[in-house]
Amino acid sequence: MAVKNAMTSDFLHSAYGGESMAHMRYLTWGAMAEKEGFPNIAKLFEAIAYAERVHANNHFKEIGGDTADATVVAGAVFGTGKTVENLQGAINGELHEVEQMYPVYLNAAEFQEEKGAQRSFHFALEAEKIHAELFKQAQDAAKGKQDIKLEAVYVCPICGHTILNDAPDNCPVCGAKKEMYKKF
Amino acid sequence: MAVKNAMTSDFLHSAYGGESMAHMRYLTWGAMAEKEGFPNIAKLFEAIAYAERVHANNHFKEIGGDTADATVVAGAVFGTGKTVENLQGAINGELHEVEQMYPVYLNAAEFQEEKGAQRSFHFALEAEKIHAELFKQAQDAAKGKQDIKLEAVYVCPICGHTILNDAPDNCPVCGAKKEMYKKF
Ligand SMILES: [Fe+2]
Ligand SMILES: [Fe+2]
Ligand SMILES: [Fe+2]
Ligand SMILES: [Fe+2]
Ligand SMILES: [Fe+2]
Ligand SMILES: [Fe+2]
Repeated sequence: MAVKNAMTSDFLHSAYGGESMAHMRYLTWGAMAEKEGFPNIAKLFEAIAYAERVHANNHFKEIGGDTADATVVAGAVFGTGKTVENLQGAINGELHEVEQMYPVYLNAAEFQEEKGAQRSFHFALEAEKIHAELFKQAQDAAKGKQDIKLEAVYVCPICGHTILNDAPDNCPVCGAKKEMYKKF
Repeated sequence: MAVKNAMTSDFLHSAYGGESMAHMRYLTWGAMAEKEGFPNIAKLFEAIAYAERVHANNHFKEIGGDTADATVVAGAVFGTGKTVENLQGAINGELHEVEQMYPVYLNAAEFQEEKGAQRSFHFALEAEKIHAELFKQAQDAAKGKQDIKLEAVYVCPICGHTILNDAPDNCPVCGAKKEMYKKF
């Protein structure tokens, strides 16, 4: 806690801004999906919004330290279209994090030997890979005017690992126990 | 919906980023206040986090339009200290919005005749004045090692108007009916 290097600190700030905005737009897009008649896609947005909250909270705590103002520069996705289009925005955002943002941030944190930031970036990267896939499945369904099929969505409150229908005995990313998963 | 002018659009993007991060840090600081033995301060953080979500959602919908990426520059407050210190961060953030950010954004939206943005900035400005006061009251209590006294917190889901203990018959900012207020 309380990152030491300025560059890794900058990246934690940007990642926190990005995760906070992702959390927020998924809540908004989830409410829109509900209205459009896709309750399960709405549930998926709500669950993944919670996973982004876990990531934001982890980054915030790694920044740590005393009360301080900062100007944050962060990527975000906008748009208030149909759910098929909003899901494309979600896929774009997740793929940017998976292919560009988190690999580079993780590499920098390794280079600067920032253990806490490495952990926080690693947790997010692993979850975003799953989010991109889940949003693709949801978009395939929505393109055919169907809701996605799911019983429930489970999210690990430590790392944001996200899985449909049932939680594993232990989180494959952070090791948290099945009982800790939050059910949506 | 779908703002026309680039400058007002920029300000909506920044305000959205700021509100999203405020929402997120209040959830984090609320959980920390709960652990420190201040359940009512935790409730206040949770309720005001919801008000910031209302603001973020309003700004996002005023931006509107097609799916698009953007780089957002926004102010935020950091720090993981004791609740008294976190409340100082909250007060600083709210006062910046009340004294600097929202008056300037509102003035610009008036100048550019952006009606929707005016409404969204006005709603936020009015709520932030109350948030600054409520966080000061909470900090006064916490400085004396006491929790703040409150029965409940009510938040208007249209504009984010925030009030302790009972909701008014009509929201004094947007006119929403008492029954619409969300209780915390
Ligand atoms: Fe994330
Ligand atoms: Fe994600
Ligand atoms: Fe996990
Ligand atoms: Fe706000
Ligand atoms: Fe506020
Ligand atoms: Fe209101």
